[in-house]
Amino acid sequence: DGNPDAGKAKSAVCAACHGPEGISSMDIYPNLAGQKEGYLVSQLQHFRDGERNNAIMAPMAKPLSDDDIADLAAYYASL
Amino acid sequence: DGNPDAGKAKSAVCAACHGPEGISSMDIYPNLAGQKEGYLVSQLQHFRDGERNNAIMAPMAKPLSDDDIADLAAYYASL
Repeated sequence: DGNPDAGKAKSAVCAACHGPEGISSMDIYPNLAGQKEGYLVSQLQHFRDGERNNAIMAPMAKPLSDDDIADLAAYYASL
Repeated sequence: DGNPDAGKAKSAVCAACHGPEGISSMDIYPNLAGQKEGYLVSQLQHFRDGERNNAIMAPMAKPLSDDDIADLAAYYASL
């Protein structure tokens, strides 16, 4: 399972669109705070692997390891 | 803009996976309660139009009109 503290440390780039506490400031970007951990893992994997296409998320997710994804998902699910 | 009360009336089928109050009971399904309205609209459109591929959501979204999508998004954003 992911480590929320490690996820928080990796989340700076996410905060630009999804908010510093996982609440987005823009209506077109989803809130992540309190979202289901398994859903967050699957979507980050899908963005990374190209199964879910999004021009903004693709380059963000591309460099993430499975551990990075687990940590980020654990962090946002914990908020 | 969508009508939350109309959306609630149209949301029975959604509740099976996303919960009666938009909080999913399964880790792989996202919570919808309090999600951004614009994001919900865009994702339902993407599922309907095939831009976002998901075997469960595709047939759910297929019959939705733009008004249905607006109402559902308004409802879940209001929770």
